Amino acid sequence: MAHSFNEQAEALLDKEFKVLDHGFVRLVDYMGSDSAIVQAARVSYGEGTKKVSEDRSLLRYLMRQRHTSPFEMVEFKFHVKLPIFVARQWIRHRSASVNEYSGRYSIMKEEFYLPRPEDIRYQSTVNKQGRSEEEVPDEIKAKLLDYLVTSQKEAYSTYSDYVEQGLARELARINLPLSLYTEWYWKIDLHNLFHFLRLRMDPHAQKEFREYAVVMADIVKTVCPMSYEAFMDYSFNSVQFSAVELRAIKDRVADLSLDQEELVKRGLSSREAVEFLEKLKKIQDL
Amino acid sequence: MAHSFNEQAEALLDKEFKVLDHGFVRLVDYMGSDSAIVQAARVSYGEGTKKVSEDRSLLRYLMRQRHTSPFEMVEFKFHVKLPIFVARQWIRHRSASVNEYSGRYSIMKEEFYLPRPEDIRYQSTVNKQGRSEEEVPDEIKAKLLDYLVTSQKEAYSTYSDYVEQGLARELARINLPLSLYTEWYWKIDLHNLFHFLRLRMDPHAQKEFREYAVVMADIVKTVCPMSYEAFMDYSFNSVQFSAVELRAIKDRVADLSLDQEELVKRGLSSREAVEFLEKLKKIQDL
Amino acid sequence: MAHSFNEQAEALLDKEFKVLDHGFVRLVDYMGSDSAIVQAARVSYGEGTKKVSEDRSLLRYLMRQRHTSPFEMVEFKFHVKLPIFVARQWIRHRSASVNEYSGRYSIMKEEFYLPRPEDIRYQSTVNKQGRSEEEVPDEIKAKLLDYLVTSQKEAYSTYSDYVEQGLARELARINLPLSLYTEWYWKIDLHNLFHFLRLRMDPHAQKEFREYAVVMADIVKTVCPMSYEAFMDYSFNSVQFSAVELRAIKDRVADLSLDQEELVKRGLSSREAVEFLEKLKKIQDL
Amino acid sequence: MAHSFNEQAEALLDKEFKVLDHGFVRLVDYMGSDSAIVQAARVSYGEGTKKVSEDRSLLRYLMRQRHTSPFEMVEFKFHVKLPIFVARQWIRHRSASVNEYSGRYSIMKEEFYLPRPEDIRYQSTVNKQGRSEEEVPDEIKAKLLDYLVTSQKEAYSTYSDYVEQGLARELARINLPLSLYTEWYWKIDLHNLFHFLRLRMDPHAQKEFREYAVVMADIVKTVCPMSYEAFMDYSFNSVQFSAVELRAIKDRVADLSLDQEELVKRGLSSREAVEFLEKLKKIQDL
Repeated sequence: MAHSFNEQAEALLDKEFKVLDHGFVRLVDYMGSDSAIVQAARVSYGEGTKKVSEDRSLLRYLMRQRHTSPFEMVEFKFHVKLPIFVARQWIRHRSASVNEYSGRYSIMKEEFYLPRPEDIRYQSTVNKQGRSEEEVPDEIKAKLLDYLVTSQKEAYSTYSDYVEQGLARELARINLPLSLYTEWYWKIDLHNLFHFLRLRMDPHAQKEFREYAVVMADIVKTVCPMSYEAFMDYSFNSVQFSAVELRAIKDRVADLSLDQEELVKRGLSSREAVEFLEKLKKIQDL
Repeated sequence: MAHSFNEQAEALLDKEFKVLDHGFVRLVDYMGSDSAIVQAARVSYGEGTKKVSEDRSLLRYLMRQRHTSPFEMVEFKFHVKLPIFVARQWIRHRSASVNEYSGRYSIMKEEFYLPRPEDIRYQSTVNKQGRSEEEVPDEIKAKLLDYLVTSQKEAYSTYSDYVEQGLARELARINLPLSLYTEWYWKIDLHNLFHFLRLRMDPHAQKEFREYAVVMADIVKTVCPMSYEAFMDYSFNSVQFSAVELRAIKDRVADLSLDQEELVKRGLSSREAVEFLEKLKKIQDL
Repeated sequence: MAHSFNEQAEALLDKEFKVLDHGFVRLVDYMGSDSAIVQAARVSYGEGTKKVSEDRSLLRYLMRQRHTSPFEMVEFKFHVKLPIFVARQWIRHRSASVNEYSGRYSIMKEEFYLPRPEDIRYQSTVNKQGRSEEEVPDEIKAKLLDYLVTSQKEAYSTYSDYVEQGLARELARINLPLSLYTEWYWKIDLHNLFHFLRLRMDPHAQKEFREYAVVMADIVKTVCPMSYEAFMDYSFNSVQFSAVELRAIKDRVADLSLDQEELVKRGLSSREAVEFLEKLKKIQDL
Repeated sequence: MAHSFNEQAEALLDKEFKVLDHGFVRLVDYMGSDSAIVQAARVSYGEGTKKVSEDRSLLRYLMRQRHTSPFEMVEFKFHVKLPIFVARQWIRHRSASVNEYSGRYSIMKEEFYLPRPEDIRYQSTVNKQGRSEEEVPDEIKAKLLDYLVTSQKEAYSTYSDYVEQGLARELARINLPLSLYTEWYWKIDLHNLFHFLRLRMDPHAQKEFREYAVVMADIVKTVCPMSYEAFMDYSFNSVQFSAVELRAIKDRVADLSLDQEELVKRGLSSREAVEFLEKLKKIQDL
């Protein structure tokens, strides 16, 4: 066998998936698949994994036990167009490779982000970094959008004039706003991409960023469907309870009275049932 | 204020804490403390943290919410002496800096690891990588220890002979066993050190490695007591339930009937009580 | 001995070194010194370094031979205030830890970068990303500065109004320009800091960025004077010739007729003289 | 276009290239090619690179100017079998992903490294970490090999016995020697792979390690021929002169009397000729 090949994944290559008003995500290339992860894991475990012969259950076991290194064996390369204020948050993920369009070499294009009216919200009072559910009156929305368009146009036209006059590009650009679009090639392995998705699909992430994450999650799901499912089940949709919380409800947990048979009846594999009972025991020992 | 200064921590500097038979951990230097983490976090949140004025509760909030970057602001530098088979696992933690004793330049010392009799165990049948609880008969233990000592002595004496005859050191050493001790300087930030401790204090870690982790945990506790406490409460002693598990016991969780008042009575802060109820809601929505 | 202590370095702590119009660099903390590097290197080389007993010559040897890991044993933590367009380039250095002021949580301050008149330049025609030497007429400079000030004021006042009206901060900020100041805590080890300085003190770096790098270089020079000197001699001020260049001038190099004695007379150590002659030989073998 | 596809490279996939007595390197998968690097670089430079239209010259320019990020866009995944003493040096390259065969889970195979007689050498007196050129008498070689074989066999047979008796594998293995073979999947990007090759094809690297590096270099050359050529010309075969050296021979350099015309006649591109003259000028300014 040569390259991993996945028809659904191949069909995604080079398609632009639109995000926000002018942005996009495009899968440029990828290396590996669910089976590449399994293959690498089997090198680690050698003969020891003969019994865990089924790929899906091995992937789920790896994800559950946080054996993360085999997931590093798959790579994704994206081409992304995004507003600078999103790019500034995105770049904080350091375990990735980036080539960004350079405003020192090249002329920035006239493309700015304008929020959709329904995304214009008040500051949340509960979530210090987020938006409230409360509606903003339409006239305030309209006024804001009007201001944004006008000032973006003006900023670009002045920028453009100065570039034409021959001013250094690295200077001409300094008053362009954070809503300006940039683009980059961004390459990351699947383990780190899952970490990225966990943080950026979270409701606490800025909405504009979340929209990129959701599109990328769909791509991951196509390239590595079993790993993605395991990620959703054992990581993204898992719930972590602190020792503080567990000590507080220890007595209630003791009352749960669940045994292995009951758990298997309720859908756990017998191995998961054992692990579950160990967790309950751990809680009693806290 | 200049350097962070913590009397208890200063008292640890340069002390050798013995581990296994010939190994040790020594804190060579450190930078920062609980307050360095708080200070960095306050730069991020700016005015927004005025209300969360208490250091301990801010540290606990950061740990709970996985705001990990402020914990990177503290550094530890250790001098460690350890058997090569432990070193081979240890070095897999890539977010650290290392300077190891070189067997190409220098002559290895005659120091080998011998397990304590009580640590000699059979292969576990439940944990594929661990040891069983079952006792090994004393005569088998004695025979093993005898073999180990004899073959270590022989390997070292042959090595020593060849080095004396002028053979290239990088060749002379190749038949030295994995029980040979090496040593290194190892520097890591607190966020990555917590990750290291989480994995290496775990019962699944090899016992010989766990003994190092436990000693290091004590050092961390002295240098950053409040962060360490938060780590134990919200990370190390937390329990994560998968979506699979939670879907299986959803109905039981619904029956828990805990409200904010009750939770606060049971020891949660009111903020934690709110977070707890959100988790219960998330489970119902799975 | 406990912490490395260096009086000159201690005196720098917490001083704000002004950069640009509103920016600064402040050394918040550091760990280690020249002797910490020597100490770590000696662990690697063990007995083998007894002869290289002098610290300075060991540091110079390490730098010359690209034995970079001991330089990772020293850490610097800076507090930096800088315009966003500089921050966007700076953050590309991934081997560092960062805590940045968050415009999602907190209100940005009204501080924008305005270039000094002498820094306003045309686009260079030779260096695609830089500025020309050619003078820009004073009236064009004045007009540009006038535009910058006016549009910065306007952008801030609108931002401020919307924040006061309660608009989500993460949205209100999107039309603030790249000349806005931000601030962060930034921690990095000396090896990676040298790499940063090599790139950012280079004439190809954007001038505004270079001014930060130069201030930081001065701080490094105070904390680790011998390492800094070695960095300047063997890295920053070294010149690398490609195989293409060397093949082209091979015959001229052969004519140099320099022997060890002559080289030592001209200031090389005898070890460096040997290394120099090996390089000349390598060139003849290309 | 979907995946980059390179017939020569595809032909390499899954072939085992023998190294040492029992080792091998096998290219498991790769992502990208010379053109993937060019493509990523063009995103950075945007319109600015229209003139540098030829791929080869752009790749050579990137390598020359140390614009390393586009080279991160190509990935290689290898399966390697290697003695543990080589693995211990190899793993020091942290910018890679690894899955290694685990001696805690699985039974190690009876495969040990035996040096070829011609590789058995005395310790070098000039290179503290290397081998001398001086011949070792045949009888000493024979005796060493005999010792190695015998002790490897004995160590393995005892290991095997204890494993059979059910002793914990993680304990049974501790007296296996460093000459034991292990294997791993190892994934790295091209930029970091070039760094690896630079260090490990160097004459100062341990010979056994160098043999792996040389085989991998051949694979890289097949997958990315133009990048490899640029790497050899501008990095691996370049020669760096320190400021100390250059100050010492400044007057001789001044006498070189090379101008652009002459340099182009001697094989430099006109751009390289300009860069060369700038270097000569830099030397005079030291």
